Amino acid sequence: MIFSSKLIEDAVKEFSRLPGIGKKTALRMVLQLLRMDGNEVDEFTGAVSRMRHGVKFCRECHNVSDSEVCGICVNPGRNRSQVCVVETIRDVIAIESTQQYSGLYHVLGGILSPLDGIGPEQLNIHTLHGRVKNNDVTELIMALSPTIEGDTTVYYIARQLNDLPVTITTIARGIAFGGELEYADEMTLARSIAKRQPIENYVTMK
Amino acid sequence: MIFSSKLIEDAVKEFSRLPGIGKKTALRMVLQLLRMDGNEVDEFTGAVSRMRHGVKFCRECHNVSDSEVCGICVNPGRNRSQVCVVETIRDVIAIESTQQYSGLYHVLGGILSPLDGIGPEQLNIHTLHGRVKNNDVTELIMALSPTIEGDTTVYYIARQLNDLPVTITTIARGIAFGGELEYADEMTLARSIAKRQPIENYVTMK
Repeated sequence: MIFSSKLIEDAVKEFSRLPGIGKKTALRMVLQLLRMDGNEVDEFTGAVSRMRHGVKFCRECHNVSDSEVCGICVNPGRNRSQVCVVETIRDVIAIESTQQYSGLYHVLGGILSPLDGIGPEQLNIHTLHGRVKNNDVTELIMALSPTIEGDTTVYYIARQLNDLPVTITTIARGIAFGGELEYADEMTLARSIAKRQPIENYVTMK
Repeated sequence: MIFSSKLIEDAVKEFSRLPGIGKKTALRMVLQLLRMDGNEVDEFTGAVSRMRHGVKFCRECHNVSDSEVCGICVNPGRNRSQVCVVETIRDVIAIESTQQYSGLYHVLGGILSPLDGIGPEQLNIHTLHGRVKNNDVTELIMALSPTIEGDTTVYYIARQLNDLPVTITTIARGIAFGGELEYADEMTLARSIAKRQPIENYVTMK
């Protein structure tokens, strides 16, 4: 692409660094910003800048937060005996958006993947033992990817905590709502038959 | 979506205002920016801000420019007797990227569309007569969309300039390179047969 403005070219280059954004999409965004009011663009850049420089990571659960401890961890209405272990911040947002979970979280920041050089030291695993012990957590819900790495992480964490009286559960796997049986992979279908539920459990979410 | 950080939420909201960007894509971008170095994010916001506040529109051709007159208009190597009329800045970038055109441009900023309330006054049409006259332009290449609005704009401009000795041409329509005949629409196919070319013209671009 040949631009007649270095300013446009620079902005396009910056947008192209974002995930899934090619040069054409970047250009479309830049031209949209160019059409917007100067004030609106200042709000855009301001929000991005404040986000990057202002966001903290909760010292309890490692979730993103605007303060030292996040809104979920300080909320007295949350069930403190339940902790849901997730890979990323995005998982917290997904689960919170269901409005069906009232416990706390623990964000690992990834899953164990020796081939990618990700061991326990690269993740927020070492703080988990103390957290479970000191806060009398009774249930740890593992909400990790249903992959070999995810399962490995579940087993690793379970072993680390086997001296504590905590129940470790994993979220249910099965056919998604609206999913069609014939398109489900064999593993999911096999597991969903093995872990079949009585009808009364099927309709409640907890 | 429920966010545990207002700062993240605000940044996601800003990104969602860009064309084609939903909440999930916006979140992916925001989390990518969160992972980037603070300096890199400052470069990102700086480039956007400088672009919005620094970009000018060339007073000759209305293309985006870093100065009063754009790099194409001031370039002594360009053929000043040829002007290519386009709808948007994006078209200039597309044509420049072919590196096959050495004349000047005229960016209308849209095409005539009475139903959308776009008349000649909303476009950069009134400057065209003076430009053609004062600069001894001999050819005006109309590179507009092959739609009713595009054709209307071509005829409108042709009528405005009918007192001047300028040849008005339109870019060739036809089957795209790599396009398959059977998938071409009837209009394009019919026109491309009617406007068939001798083989020697076919291989040259000018």
